[in-house]
Formats: sequence, structure tokens, C-alpha cells
Amino acid sequence: MTAAPAAPTDVFFDFLCPYAWRGLELADVLRAQRHAFRLRHFSLVQGNHADNAAAGGPVWWLTDQPLDEGSPYQQHSLAAFLAAHAAAQQGDELHWAFTLALYRAVHEHKQTLDETAIVEAAQTAGLDLSAFAAARANEAGPRASLRAELAEAAEIGVFGTPTFVLPDGSAAYYRFENLTRDPDTALVWWNLYGEVLRSGAGIATIKRAKNRPAQKA
Amino acid sequence: MTAAPAAPTDVFFDFLCPYAWRGLELADVLRAQRHAFRLRHFSLVQGNHADNAAAGGPVWWLTDQPLDEGSPYQQHSLAAFLAAHAAAQQGDELHWAFTLALYRAVHEHKQTLDETAIVEAAQTAGLDLSAFAAARANEAGPRASLRAELAEAAEIGVFGTPTFVLPDGSAAYYRFENLTRDPDTALVWWNLYGEVLRSGAGIATIKRAKNRPAQKA
Repeated sequence: MTAAPAAPTDVFFDFLCPYAWRGLELADVLRAQRHAFRLRHFSLVQGNHADNAAAGGPVWWLTDQPLDEGSPYQQHSLAAFLAAHAAAQQGDELHWAFTLALYRAVHEHKQTLDETAIVEAAQTAGLDLSAFAAARANEAGPRASLRAELAEAAEIGVFGTPTFVLPDGSAAYYRFENLTRDPDTALVWWNLYGEVLRSGAGIATIKRAKNRPAQKA
Repeated sequence: MTAAPAAPTDVFFDFLCPYAWRGLELADVLRAQRHAFRLRHFSLVQGNHADNAAAGGPVWWLTDQPLDEGSPYQQHSLAAFLAAHAAAQQGDELHWAFTLALYRAVHEHKQTLDETAIVEAAQTAGLDLSAFAAARANEAGPRASLRAELAEAAEIGVFGTPTFVLPDGSAAYYRFENLTRDPDTALVWWNLYGEVLRSGAGIATIKRAKNRPAQKA
């Protein structure tokens, strides 16, 4: 008899966001401790788009845009999302490996989030490169998968990354300044987030005053 | 030999705000447990004023406005702030009593934040009513005190209420849905806020996704 696998926590992220990078690293450390996380994409470019703010929901979709139009942020994030969906076709572990490799390239090693970074991340992650290229060339599948995630994020009301959606349905943006790869530290930081969400106070927001930022370690 | 009094935590609030009301009730419960809090005003009308958003800081000051101009929110909040400063001239305990009485009238008993509510709160709090009236009639002192608080709030970057500024200088908006007057519960809710601010993660924000609000008890 084995324990049933725990329901996963969804983590919504955008490759553009350094806070989401630290959130993903936290999740990855916790995965090794049998916490289950599921990778989900949220587009900051779409979320912040003026048309969508005016409409109170998505009318402008990142997934409706050609890869070579819009700002560099738009182009880079769309390409990265589609590449991640192509990587996901090789299984969950390689999906995680690709996601972390691309995040580290951009936010730890300060590379640009471009085609070079995507190809190098695929190599670092150990993807089957020809299968990866074939999956990327067939854009329709990755675009449909991404569209479903963006619609789900809109339904939840995700507005920034990382946003974690717990198995009980509660969901919050969790922004922190410091990186940890230490298992005990990661667990403390994660449990504190959970305590805030589960508190009987019904905590909606804890957010630093503008000129009193959190301390970076 | 007695313990030195603890440095106070400043709590910034606006009488318009129901979250600040619950924050003040929390602080009041903790005061009975020897936690020191200091009452400080922050104006949501000023903070949200378009001129100030455009300028990136206060150029439009609530304290420069006549009592009979502007929206009802503006008029009511200015009158309440000035009345509170008049009450404060009768000492810290009566200042707290007036502040809580006015908050409860408006947010617990759903009265309008107007002259009637202010006068009734003064009676409920046990103020010397003729001294209170005299202090209110001399507007210059209360306006100067309020101006200093609003300037301090701007320096800290307060953007919403309640915002607590701890003795170590860290400061954050703490928004929660539920009211407690239970000492043990209040201490748990307060300690959790402190843990978030002191966490080595360097937590900047925990904020619920828009369509997954905190649970009201």
C-alpha cells in the first residue's frame, strides 16, 4: 500500500519575471520533498495589456499574436511559452528541466530571453532536440495548450507571477526577493505562505509600503 | 526595576476604511497585552488623488482643503481626522476611545461618517465635550498635526490602510476580512504578520488572486 499522490499546487509564471523564477526554484526544491507542483503559464504582457484592463478581462490574447510582432517582451515571452509546451511533450521531468534551465539562463546568468537561450536551455535540460524542434514547428498544439492556461489564469484572476493555486482552491501572488535552494529553508518559506492563506483572519493582502522594501539577503 | 516600554508600532488608518477598522480593533486588543501602538492618519482620498498619482507624490493635500468642499468621502474623512486630533489633546486613552467609537459607529453600526457620528463618538468615548468643541474650533493645530502625519505616510510610501510600521522600520499594508476581539486570536494574527515581514525570504507581497478572495468567517 502506498500513499496516494498529493493533489498538485499549480504555479503560474512568466519567463519574464524574476520573482516567478525564485518561486519556481522554491517549488523545485519542494518537489524533492514530495510536494507536487504543476507548471502553468500566465502572460504579464497579456495581463497588463491596456485593452484587457479596459475590458475587465482578456479580449487581447497573446496566443492570437504572430511570433514576430509586438514588443520584445511580447515576442520573447510568447516564444518561450510555446517552447515550454513543446518541451512538455517529452514528459513532466524534462518540462521542469527545460523551464528551470531557461529561467536560470535569463535571471541567474542574465542572458536575453531569445532563440539562443531557448535552444541552449533545451540542450542543458537534455531534451531530444529533433523532437523538440518538430514540436515547435507544429505551433498549433502549443498555442492551444497555452491558450487554455491563459484562460484558466483569467478565470482565477491571476494578476502577477508567481501565483500559487493550492489544492483547496485558494490562490495568491507570492513575491519574495531572495533565492533559496536549501530544503529546510524552502519548506519554512512555503509553510509561511500557506499559513497566511489558511489564517482565520481571512488575509487578503500583505504588501510592503513603497519606500520600505523587503530586505535582500 | 521595570521593563522599558516597548517602542510603538505605528498604525496608519483612514476612518473610511473597514480594513483599517479591523486593524485598529486588533491593535486595541494587543494594547491590553502590553503591545504599544501609535495612531497615525493616512488619507485614502489624498493617496488616490489623480494629481498625486501623476506627480508621484503629494501635491494635492487633504489638509489644504476647506471642510465643505470636495466629495462626501473627502469632507467626511477630513472632518474625522481633525476631530481625532482634537480628541488627542485630551490624552492617549481618550484618543483611542474616540477613534474606536467612531470606527464602530461607521463600520460596525453602519452610520454615516458625519458630524452626528463624530459628536456621538465623543460622547461614547467620554471626552470633555466643551474642550473637544473648543479644540475643533481652533482648526490650525489639528490641521498642522494631520499634515505632519500625511507627510510621514508619503515618506514611508503608505498606499492603503491599515499599514503597520514596526519599530524596526519595516512597514506593510495588512488587509484581512475578519474581526477579532479575542486576545489569543489577535496575537496569532499579529505574529503571523510579523513573521511575514521578518522572513528571510524577503517577502514583498502576498496578495490573493482576484477571483479567489479570502474567506470571511
